[in-house]
Amino acid sequence: MRIIRVRHKEQAFYAAIVSPESVRPLNREDGQPEEIPLAELELLPLVRPSKIVCVGLNYLDHAHELGLAVPEEPILFLKPPSSVIGAGDTIVLPASCEQVDYEAELALVMGRTARFVAEENAAQHIFGYTCANDVTARDLQRKDGQWTRAKGFDTFCPVGPWIETDPGDLHDLALRTTVGGQVRQEGNTGSMIFPPHLLVSYISNIMTLLPGDVILTGTPAGIGPLKPGDEVSVEIDRVGFLLNPVIGQALDEPTAMQ
Amino acid sequence: MRIIRVRHKEQAFYAAIVSPESVRPLNREDGQPEEIPLAELELLPLVRPSKIVCVGLNYLDHAHELGLAVPEEPILFLKPPSSVIGAGDTIVLPASCEQVDYEAELALVMGRTARFVAEENAAQHIFGYTCANDVTARDLQRKDGQWTRAKGFDTFCPVGPWIETDPGDLHDLALRTTVGGQVRQEGNTGSMIFPPHLLVSYISNIMTLLPGDVILTGTPAGIGPLKPGDEVSVEIDRVGFLLNPVIGQALDEPTAMQ
Repeated sequence: MRIIRVRHKEQAFYAAIVSPESVRPLNREDGQPEEIPLAELELLPLVRPSKIVCVGLNYLDHAHELGLAVPEEPILFLKPPSSVIGAGDTIVLPASCEQVDYEAELALVMGRTARFVAEENAAQHIFGYTCANDVTARDLQRKDGQWTRAKGFDTFCPVGPWIETDPGDLHDLALRTTVGGQVRQEGNTGSMIFPPHLLVSYISNIMTLLPGDVILTGTPAGIGPLKPGDEVSVEIDRVGFLLNPVIGQALDEPTAMQ
Repeated sequence: MRIIRVRHKEQAFYAAIVSPESVRPLNREDGQPEEIPLAELELLPLVRPSKIVCVGLNYLDHAHELGLAVPEEPILFLKPPSSVIGAGDTIVLPASCEQVDYEAELALVMGRTARFVAEENAAQHIFGYTCANDVTARDLQRKDGQWTRAKGFDTFCPVGPWIETDPGDLHDLALRTTVGGQVRQEGNTGSMIFPPHLLVSYISNIMTLLPGDVILTGTPAGIGPLKPGDEVSVEIDRVGFLLNPVIGQALDEPTAMQ
Protein backbone atom coordinates (compact mmCIF):
# COMPACT_ATOMS: atom_id res chain seq x y z
CA MET A 1 0.00 0.00 0.00
CA ARG A 2 1.27 3.47 -0.89
CA ILE A 3 0.55 6.16 1.70
CA ILE A 4 0.72 9.94 1.40
CA ARG A 5 -0.11 12.77 3.78
CA VAL A 6 -2.77 15.18 2.57
CA ARG A 7 -5.08 17.99 3.64
CA HIS A 8 -8.78 17.99 2.71
CA LYS A 9 -11.33 20.47 4.06
CA GLU A 10 -9.00 21.74 6.84
CA GLN A 11 -8.14 18.21 7.99
CA ALA A 12 -4.64 16.72 7.65
CA PHE A 13 -4.43 12.93 7.45
CA TYR A 14 -2.64 9.95 5.94
CA ALA A 15 -4.33 8.35 2.94
CA ALA A 16 -3.71 5.31 0.73
CA ILE A 17 -3.37 5.81 -3.02
CA VAL A 18 -6.11 3.56 -4.48
CA SER A 19 -6.01 4.75 -8.11
CA PRO A 20 -4.07 7.26 -10.20
CA GLU A 21 -6.79 9.81 -9.36
CA SER A 22 -7.92 9.10 -5.81
CA VAL A 23 -6.99 8.24 -2.24
CA ARG A 24 -8.72 6.56 0.70
CA PRO A 25 -8.27 8.11 4.17
CA LEU A 26 -6.41 5.66 6.44
CA ASN A 27 -8.45 6.41 9.54
CA ARG A 28 -11.78 7.63 8.25
CA GLU A 29 -13.35 10.43 10.26
CA ASP A 30 -17.10 10.98 10.59
CA GLY A 31 -18.51 12.43 7.40
CA GLN A 32 -15.36 11.80 5.36
CA PRO A 33 -15.97 10.17 1.97
CA GLU A 34 -14.52 6.69 1.44
CA GLU A 35 -12.56 7.95 -1.56
CA ILE A 36 -11.35 11.48 -2.32
CA PRO A 37 -10.13 12.69 -5.74
CA LEU A 38 -6.46 13.74 -5.73
CA ALA A 39 -7.54 17.01 -7.37
CA GLU A 40 -9.40 18.00 -4.18
CA LEU A 41 -6.38 17.43 -1.96
CA GLU A 42 -3.40 19.46 -0.86
CA LEU A 43 -0.27 17.29 -0.65
CA LEU A 44 1.54 17.70 2.69
CA PRO A 45 5.13 16.79 3.61
CA LEU A 46 5.23 13.01 3.87
CA VAL A 47 6.82 12.95 7.30
CA ARG A 48 7.02 15.30 10.25
CA PRO A 49 9.65 13.51 12.33
CA SER A 50 10.63 14.53 15.84
CA LYS A 51 14.03 13.21 14.77
CA ILE A 52 15.83 11.66 11.81
CA VAL A 53 18.30 9.03 12.96
CA CYS A 54 20.88 8.09 10.34
CA VAL A 55 23.40 5.28 10.10
CA GLY A 56 26.86 5.90 8.68
CA LEU A 57 28.96 3.38 6.74
CA ASN A 58 26.27 0.69 6.71
CA TYR A 59 27.33 -0.80 3.37
CA LEU A 60 30.75 -2.50 3.16
CA ASP A 61 31.52 -1.10 -0.29
CA HIS A 62 30.79 2.49 0.81
CA ALA A 63 33.07 2.20 3.87
CA HIS A 64 35.81 0.97 1.52
CA GLU A 65 35.33 3.81 -1.00
CA LEU A 66 35.71 6.37 1.83
CA GLY A 67 38.76 4.51 3.13
CA LEU A 68 37.15 4.08 6.55
CA ALA A 69 37.14 1.09 8.88
CA VAL A 70 34.07 -1.16 8.88
CA PRO A 71 32.14 -0.34 12.07
CA GLU A 72 31.55 -2.97 14.77
CA GLU A 73 28.35 -1.25 15.86
CA PRO A 74 26.07 1.10 13.91
CA ILE A 75 27.47 4.65 13.71
CA LEU A 76 24.58 7.01 14.43
CA PHE A 77 24.10 10.65 13.54
CA LEU A 78 21.09 12.96 13.30
CA LYS A 79 19.79 15.18 10.53
CA PRO A 80 17.56 18.09 11.67
CA PRO A 81 13.86 17.96 10.68
CA SER A 82 14.42 21.36 9.02
CA SER A 83 16.45 19.57 6.31
CA VAL A 84 13.43 17.57 5.03
CA ILE A 85 11.93 18.29 1.61
CA GLY A 86 9.56 16.21 -0.49
CA ALA A 87 9.55 14.66 -3.95
CA GLY A 88 9.98 17.35 -6.60
CA ASP A 89 11.26 19.94 -4.13
CA THR A 90 14.56 21.65 -4.86
CA ILE A 91 17.91 20.79 -3.25
CA VAL A 92 19.85 24.02 -2.66
CA LEU A 93 23.66 23.80 -2.79
CA PRO A 94 25.01 26.23 -0.14
CA ALA A 95 27.62 28.72 -1.29
CA SER A 96 29.81 27.66 1.65
CA CYS A 97 30.17 24.05 0.37
CA GLU A 98 32.72 22.96 -2.24
CA GLN A 99 31.34 19.48 -2.91
CA VAL A 100 27.81 18.32 -2.17
CA ASP A 101 27.13 14.61 -2.79
CA TYR A 102 24.00 12.52 -3.23
CA GLU A 103 23.56 9.39 -1.05
CA ALA A 104 20.65 7.06 -1.90
CA GLU A 105 19.13 5.45 1.19
CA LEU A 106 16.21 3.27 2.24
CA ALA A 107 14.25 5.19 4.89
CA LEU A 108 12.09 3.59 7.59
CA VAL A 109 9.12 5.54 8.97
CA MET A 110 8.14 4.57 12.51
CA GLY A 111 4.50 3.80 13.22
CA ARG A 112 4.56 3.14 16.96
CA THR A 113 6.62 4.34 19.89
CA ALA A 114 9.66 2.08 20.20
CA ARG A 115 11.84 1.76 23.31
CA PHE A 116 13.90 -1.31 24.19
CA VAL A 117 12.49 -3.22 21.21
CA ALA A 118 14.01 -6.59 20.32
CA GLU A 119 15.07 -7.15 16.71
CA GLU A 120 12.36 -9.80 16.21
CA ASN A 121 9.66 -7.33 17.28
CA ALA A 122 10.92 -4.38 15.23
CA ALA A 123 8.58 -4.90 12.25
CA GLN A 124 5.44 -4.13 14.25
CA HIS A 125 6.83 -0.69 15.13
CA ILE A 126 7.53 0.31 11.51
CA PHE A 127 4.83 2.10 9.52
CA GLY A 128 6.53 1.76 6.15
CA TYR A 129 9.42 2.52 3.83
CA THR A 130 10.37 5.33 1.51
CA CYS A 131 13.29 6.72 -0.49
CA ALA A 132 15.68 9.27 0.95
CA ASN A 133 18.70 11.21 -0.24
CA ASP A 134 21.20 11.88 2.57
CA VAL A 135 22.66 14.94 0.85
CA THR A 136 26.14 15.62 2.28
CA ALA A 137 28.70 18.40 1.93
CA ARG A 138 31.72 16.13 1.62
CA ASP A 139 34.29 18.87 2.22
CA LEU A 140 32.62 19.97 5.48
CA GLN A 141 32.14 16.36 6.60
CA ARG A 142 35.92 15.85 6.35
CA LYS A 143 36.73 19.21 7.95
CA ASP A 144 34.34 19.19 10.93
CA GLY A 145 34.74 15.66 12.28
CA GLN A 146 31.14 15.82 13.52
CA TRP A 147 28.81 15.39 10.52
CA THR A 148 25.97 17.65 11.68
CA ARG A 149 26.80 20.72 9.60
CA ALA A 150 27.76 18.73 6.49
CA LYS A 151 24.45 16.84 6.53
CA GLY A 152 22.22 19.41 8.23
CA PHE A 153 21.62 22.21 5.70
CA ASP A 154 18.03 23.02 4.75
CA THR A 155 16.90 20.84 1.78
CA PHE A 156 19.58 18.18 2.50
CA CYS A 157 17.02 15.45 3.29
CA PRO A 158 14.68 14.72 0.36
CA VAL A 159 12.16 12.01 1.40
CA GLY A 160 9.38 10.44 -0.69
CA PRO A 161 7.38 10.14 -2.82
CA TRP A 162 5.12 7.97 -0.62
CA ILE A 163 5.34 5.50 2.25
CA GLU A 164 5.22 1.91 0.95
CA THR A 165 3.90 -0.36 3.68
CA ASP A 166 4.62 -3.71 1.97
CA PRO A 167 7.90 -3.63 0.01
CA GLY A 168 8.48 -7.40 0.32
CA ASP A 169 11.92 -8.76 1.33
CA LEU A 170 13.77 -5.89 3.04
CA HIS A 171 17.08 -7.63 2.44
CA ASP A 172 16.75 -7.65 -1.32
CA LEU A 173 15.81 -4.16 -2.47
CA ALA A 174 17.89 -2.80 -5.34
CA LEU A 175 18.55 0.93 -5.00
CA ARG A 176 20.12 3.32 -7.48
CA THR A 177 20.84 6.99 -7.97
CA THR A 178 20.63 8.72 -11.31
CA VAL A 179 21.81 12.21 -12.16
CA GLY A 180 20.34 13.57 -15.38
CA GLY A 181 19.05 10.06 -16.11
CA GLN A 182 22.55 8.47 -15.88
CA VAL A 183 22.97 5.76 -13.25
CA ARG A 184 25.63 6.86 -10.74
CA GLN A 185 25.09 4.66 -7.70
CA GLU A 186 23.80 1.11 -7.50
CA GLY A 187 23.43 -1.21 -4.54
CA ASN A 188 21.17 -3.66 -2.77
CA THR A 189 19.92 -3.58 0.80
CA GLY A 190 21.19 -7.16 1.09
CA SER A 191 24.69 -5.64 1.42
CA MET A 192 23.85 -3.74 4.61
CA ILE A 193 26.15 -4.48 7.54
CA PHE A 194 23.31 -3.83 10.03
CA PRO A 195 19.88 -4.66 8.55
CA PRO A 196 16.76 -2.55 9.18
CA HIS A 197 15.20 -4.49 12.08
CA LEU A 198 18.51 -4.62 13.94
CA LEU A 199 18.81 -0.84 13.51
CA VAL A 200 15.36 -0.24 15.02
CA SER A 201 16.32 -2.41 17.99
CA TYR A 202 19.73 -0.79 18.40
CA ILE A 203 18.43 2.78 18.22
CA SER A 204 15.41 2.05 20.47
CA ASN A 205 17.81 0.86 23.16
CA ILE A 206 19.37 4.33 23.17
CA MET A 207 16.46 6.69 22.53
CA THR A 208 12.68 6.51 22.32
CA LEU A 209 11.53 6.40 18.70
CA LEU A 210 8.20 8.15 18.16
CA PRO A 211 5.56 7.65 15.45
CA GLY A 212 6.70 9.58 12.36
CA ASP A 213 10.38 9.39 13.26
CA VAL A 214 12.58 8.46 10.32
CA ILE A 215 15.60 6.16 10.16
CA LEU A 216 18.01 6.46 7.21
CA THR A 217 19.77 3.14 6.78
CA GLY A 218 22.98 4.16 5.01
CA THR A 219 24.18 4.36 1.42
CA PRO A 220 26.04 1.93 -0.88
CA ALA A 221 29.16 2.75 -2.94
CA GLY A 222 29.10 5.18 -5.82
CA ILE A 223 28.55 8.52 -4.12
CA GLY A 224 29.34 11.58 -6.17
CA PRO A 225 28.75 15.30 -6.53
CA LEU A 226 25.73 17.36 -7.54
CA LYS A 227 25.86 20.65 -9.43
CA PRO A 228 23.30 23.37 -10.11
CA GLY A 229 20.88 22.34 -12.85
CA ASP A 230 21.11 18.60 -12.07
CA GLU A 231 18.08 16.42 -11.50
CA VAL A 232 18.87 13.63 -9.04
CA SER A 233 16.72 10.56 -8.46
CA VAL A 234 16.80 7.89 -5.78
CA GLU A 235 14.96 4.77 -6.92
CA ILE A 236 14.34 1.73 -4.74
CA ASP A 237 12.65 -1.32 -6.23
CA ARG A 238 9.15 -1.95 -4.83
CA VAL A 239 9.46 1.24 -2.73
CA GLY A 240 9.45 4.29 -5.00
CA PHE A 241 11.19 6.89 -7.10
CA LEU A 242 12.29 10.22 -5.58
CA LEU A 243 13.25 12.99 -8.01
CA ASN A 244 14.66 16.39 -6.99
CA PRO A 245 16.08 19.28 -9.00
CA VAL A 246 19.26 20.98 -7.77
CA ILE A 247 20.08 24.68 -7.72
CA GLY A 248 22.88 26.82 -6.31
CA GLN A 249 22.33 29.18 -3.38
CA ALA A 250 21.21 32.60 -4.57
CA LEU A 251 23.98 35.16 -4.26
CA ASP A 252 21.85 37.56 -2.23
CA GLU A 253 21.54 35.07 0.63
CA PRO A 254 24.27 35.64 3.20
CA THR A 255 26.56 32.71 3.99
CA ALA A 256 27.95 31.52 7.29
CA MET A 257 30.07 33.84 9.46
CA GLN A 258 29.37 37.00 7.45
CA MET B 1 11.01 37.65 33.59
CA ARG B 2 10.83 33.94 34.37
CA ILE B 3 8.65 31.89 32.01
CA ILE B 4 7.28 28.38 32.41
CA ARG B 5 4.99 26.24 30.27
CA VAL B 6 1.77 25.14 31.94
CA ARG B 7 -1.63 23.60 31.32
CA HIS B 8 -4.81 25.12 32.79
CA LYS B 9 -8.32 23.98 31.94
CA GLU B 10 -7.20 21.96 28.88
CA GLN B 11 -5.13 24.85 27.51
CA ALA B 12 -1.33 24.71 27.26
CA PHE B 13 0.50 28.03 27.31
CA TYR B 14 3.58 29.95 28.43
CA ALA B 15 3.19 32.00 31.60
CA ALA B 16 5.35 34.43 33.58
CA ILE B 17 6.04 33.70 37.25
CA VAL B 18 4.76 36.82 39.04
CA SER B 19 4.90 35.60 42.66
CA PRO B 20 5.90 32.42 44.50
CA GLU B 21 2.27 31.28 44.15
CA SER B 22 1.01 32.52 40.82
CA VAL B 23 1.65 33.04 37.13
CA ARG B 24 0.36 35.38 34.43
CA PRO B 25 -0.43 33.93 30.97
CA LEU B 26 1.92 35.43 28.37
CA ASN B 27 -0.70 35.72 25.64
CA ARG B 28 -3.99 35.97 27.48
CA GLU B 29 -6.87 34.16 25.79
CA ASP B 30 -10.50 35.25 26.07
CA GLY B 31 -11.87 34.42 29.49
CA GLN B 32 -8.49 33.60 31.01
CA PRO B 33 -7.84 35.22 34.38
CA GLU B 34 -4.99 37.73 34.60
CA GLU B 35 -3.30 35.66 37.30
CA ILE B 36 -3.58 31.92 37.96
CA PRO B 37 -2.48 30.22 41.19
CA LEU B 38 0.36 27.71 40.65
CA ALA B 39 -1.74 25.15 42.54
CA GLU B 40 -4.30 25.13 39.72
CA LEU B 41 -1.69 24.46 37.03
CA GLU B 42 -0.07 21.42 35.56
CA LEU B 43 3.61 22.07 34.80
CA LEU B 44 4.55 21.06 31.25
CA PRO B 45 7.99 20.40 29.77
CA LEU B 46 9.64 23.80 29.38
CA VAL B 47 10.58 23.29 25.75
CA ARG B 48 9.33 21.16 22.89
CA PRO B 49 12.11 21.77 20.38
CA SER B 50 12.03 20.53 16.79
CA LYS B 51 15.79 20.28 17.30
CA ILE B 52 18.49 20.82 19.90
CA VAL B 53 21.64 22.22 18.30
CA CYS B 54 24.74 21.90 20.47
CA VAL B 55 28.20 23.39 20.24
CA GLY B 56 31.25 21.35 21.16
CA LEU B 57 34.48 22.68 22.66
CA ASN B 58 33.21 26.24 22.99
CA TYR B 59 35.29 27.05 26.11
CA LEU B 60 39.07 27.14 25.72
CA ASP B 61 39.71 25.42 29.06
CA HIS B 62 37.39 22.51 28.20
CA ALA B 63 39.08 21.92 24.83
CA HIS B 64 42.39 21.80 26.69
CA GLU B 65 41.15 19.34 29.34
CA LEU B 66 40.00 16.94 26.59
CA GLY B 67 43.33 17.41 24.77
CA LEU B 68 41.53 18.58 21.61
CA ALA B 69 42.43 21.39 19.23
CA VAL B 70 40.64 24.72 19.61
CA PRO B 71 38.09 24.89 16.78
CA GLU B 72 38.27 27.63 14.11
CA GLU B 73 34.51 27.45 13.58
CA PRO B 74 31.78 26.20 15.94
CA ILE B 75 31.57 22.39 16.04
CA LEU B 76 27.89 21.47 15.85
CA PHE B 77 26.07 18.34 16.93
CA LEU B 78 22.44 17.50 17.68
CA LYS B 79 20.75 15.93 20.69
CA PRO B 80 17.38 14.28 19.99
CA PRO B 81 14.27 15.90 21.52
CA SER B 82 13.59 12.53 23.20
CA SER B 83 16.55 13.23 25.51
CA VAL B 84 14.89 16.25 27.15
CA ILE B 85 13.76 16.12 30.80
CA GLY B 86 12.81 18.93 33.16
CA ALA B 87 13.98 20.22 36.52
CA GLY B 88 13.63 17.51 39.17
CA ASP B 89 13.33 14.70 36.62
CA THR B 90 15.67 11.75 36.90
CA ILE B 91 18.80 11.18 34.77
CA VAL B 92 19.07 7.45 34.00
CA LEU B 93 22.60 6.05 33.55
CA PRO B 94 22.40 3.38 30.81
CA ALA B 95 23.86 -0.03 31.63
CA SER B 96 25.83 0.12 28.37
CA CYS B 97 27.85 3.19 29.45
CA GLU B 98 30.98 3.04 31.61
CA GLN B 99 31.30 6.75 32.37
CA VAL B 100 28.52 9.32 32.14
CA ASP B 101 29.57 12.93 32.72
CA TYR B 102 27.69 16.14 33.56
CA GLU B 103 28.29 19.22 31.37
CA ALA B 104 26.79 22.54 32.57
CA GLU B 105 25.65 24.73 29.69
CA LEU B 106 23.80 27.96 29.02
CA ALA B 107 20.84 27.14 26.76
CA LEU B 108 19.16 29.58 24.36
CA VAL B 109 15.48 29.10 23.52
CA MET B 110 14.49 30.50 20.13
CA GLY B 111 11.44 32.76 19.94
CA ARG B 112 11.20 33.45 16.22
CA THR B 113 12.10 31.60 13.07
CA ALA B 114 15.72 32.37 12.22
CA ARG B 115 17.33 31.86 8.80
CA PHE B 116 20.35 33.82 7.51
CA VAL B 117 20.32 36.04 10.61
CA ALA B 118 23.23 38.43 11.15
CA GLU B 119 24.96 38.37 14.54
CA GLU B 120 23.72 41.90 15.35
CA ASN B 121 20.10 40.82 14.79
CA ALA B 122 20.30 37.55 16.73
CA ALA B 123 18.87 38.91 19.99
CA GLN B 124 15.44 39.59 18.53
CA HIS B 125 15.11 35.90 17.55
CA ILE B 126 15.88 34.60 21.05
CA PHE B 127 13.01 34.04 23.49
CA GLY B 128 15.18 33.52 26.55
CA TYR B 129 17.81 31.56 28.44
CA THR B 130 17.82 28.54 30.70
CA CYS B 131 20.16 25.98 32.26
CA ALA B 132 20.99 22.70 30.57
CA ASN B 133 23.07 19.65 31.36
CA ASP B 134 24.60 18.09 28.24
CA VAL B 135 24.88 14.64 29.82
CA THR B 136 27.49 12.61 27.91
CA ALA B 137 28.67 8.99 27.96
CA ARG B 138 32.38 9.78 27.73
CA ASP B 139 33.44 6.23 26.84
CA LEU B 140 30.99 6.05 23.92
CA GLN B 141 31.91 9.55 22.76
CA ARG B 142 35.55 8.43 22.42
CA LYS B 143 34.63 5.10 20.83
CA ASP B 144 32.05 6.22 18.24
CA GLY B 145 33.68 9.29 16.74
CA GLN B 146 30.21 10.69 16.06
CA TRP B 147 28.74 11.98 19.36
CA THR B 148 25.08 11.16 18.70
CA ARG B 149 24.86 7.94 20.74
CA ALA B 150 27.01 9.25 23.61
CA LYS B 151 24.84 12.33 23.99
CA GLY B 152 21.50 11.00 22.74
CA PHE B 153 20.18 8.64 25.42
CA ASP B 154 16.76 9.36 26.92
CA THR B 155 17.10 11.71 29.97
CA PHE B 156 20.52 13.03 28.74
CA CYS B 157 19.25 16.62 28.27
CA PRO B 158 17.91 18.17 31.49
CA VAL B 159 16.63 21.70 30.76
CA GLY B 160 15.13 24.21 33.19
CA PRO B 161 13.77 25.28 35.59
CA TRP B 162 12.35 28.25 33.68
CA ILE B 163 13.14 30.50 30.72
CA GLU B 164 14.74 33.75 31.90
CA THR B 165 14.10 36.47 29.33
CA ASP B 166 16.39 39.15 30.80
CA PRO B 167 19.60 37.66 32.25
CA GLY B 168 21.64 40.82 31.72
CA ASP B 169 25.13 40.65 30.15
CA LEU B 170 25.31 37.33 28.28
CA HIS B 171 29.10 37.50 28.32
CA ASP B 172 29.40 37.54 32.09
CA LEU B 173 27.26 34.72 33.49
CA ALA B 174 28.98 32.51 36.04
CA LEU B 175 27.96 28.87 35.74
CA ARG B 176 28.73 25.95 38.02
CA THR B 177 27.91 22.32 38.52
CA THR B 178 27.49 20.72 41.91
CA VAL B 179 27.20 17.02 42.70
CA GLY B 180 25.81 16.31 46.16
CA GLY B 181 26.24 20.00 46.95
CA GLN B 182 29.99 19.98 46.15
CA VAL B 183 31.10 22.35 43.39
CA ARG B 184 32.67 20.32 40.55
CA GLN B 185 32.65 22.64 37.55
CA GLU B 186 32.96 26.41 37.41
CA GLY B 187 33.15 28.78 34.48
CA ASN B 188 31.89 31.98 32.99
CA THR B 189 30.20 32.58 29.65
CA GLY B 190 32.79 35.29 29.05
CA SER B 191 35.25 32.47 28.24
CA MET B 192 33.22 31.20 25.30
CA ILE B 193 35.15 31.02 22.03
CA PHE B 194 31.95 31.70 20.01
CA PRO B 195 29.46 33.85 21.97
CA PRO B 196 25.66 33.26 21.90
CA HIS B 197 24.66 35.76 19.19
CA LEU B 198 27.39 34.56 16.85
CA LEU B 199 26.15 30.99 17.36
CA VAL B 200 22.58 31.94 16.40
CA SER B 201 23.90 33.60 13.25
CA TYR B 202 26.23 30.72 12.38
CA ILE B 203 23.58 28.01 12.87
CA SER B 204 20.86 30.01 11.08
CA ASN B 205 23.11 30.17 8.02
CA ILE B 206 23.04 26.35 7.90
CA MET B 207 19.55 25.43 9.05
CA THR B 208 16.26 27.17 9.82
CA LEU B 209 15.82 27.62 13.57
CA LEU B 210 12.18 27.41 14.67
CA PRO B 211 10.46 28.89 17.72
CA GLY B 212 11.10 26.56 20.66
CA ASP B 213 14.35 25.21 19.21
CA VAL B 214 17.15 25.04 21.75
CA ILE B 215 20.86 25.86 21.39
CA LEU B 216 23.32 24.49 23.94
CA THR B 217 26.35 26.75 24.00
CA GLY B 218 29.06 24.42 25.30
CA THR B 219 30.59 23.61 28.67
CA PRO B 220 33.62 24.96 30.58
CA ALA B 221 36.37 22.84 32.15
CA GLY B 222 35.72 20.55 35.10
CA ILE B 223 33.57 17.82 33.61
CA GLY B 224 33.31 14.65 35.63
CA PRO B 225 31.27 11.49 36.20
CA LEU B 226 27.86 10.87 37.72
CA LYS B 227 26.87 7.78 39.68
CA PRO B 228 23.53 6.35 40.82
CA GLY B 229 22.24 8.21 43.87
CA ASP B 230 23.89 11.52 42.94
CA GLU B 231 22.02 14.80 42.75
CA VAL B 232 23.52 17.07 40.11
CA SER B 233 22.80 20.78 39.74
CA VAL B 234 23.59 23.26 37.01
CA GLU B 235 23.44 26.82 38.30
CA ILE B 236 23.81 29.91 36.14
CA ASP B 237 23.81 33.35 37.78
CA ARG B 238 20.73 35.43 36.89
CA VAL B 239 19.34 32.47 34.89
CA GLY B 240 18.41 29.63 37.21
CA PHE B 241 19.19 26.46 39.12
CA LEU B 242 18.54 23.04 37.57
CA LEU B 243 18.61 20.04 39.90
CA ASN B 244 18.28 16.41 38.79
CA PRO B 245 18.64 13.13 40.68
CA VAL B 246 20.60 10.29 39.05
CA ILE B 247 19.76 6.59 38.99
CA GLY B 248 21.16 3.52 37.23
CA GLN B 249 19.24 1.73 34.51
CA ALA B 250 16.96 -0.96 35.94
CA LEU B 251 18.33 -4.45 35.31
CA ASP B 252 15.12 -5.67 33.71
CA GLU B 253 15.44 -3.18 30.85
CA PRO B 254 17.23 -4.79 27.92
CA THR B 255 20.38 -3.12 26.68
CA ALA B 256 21.58 -2.49 23.15
CA MET B 257 22.18 -5.37 20.75
CA GLN B 258 20.50 -8.01 22.95
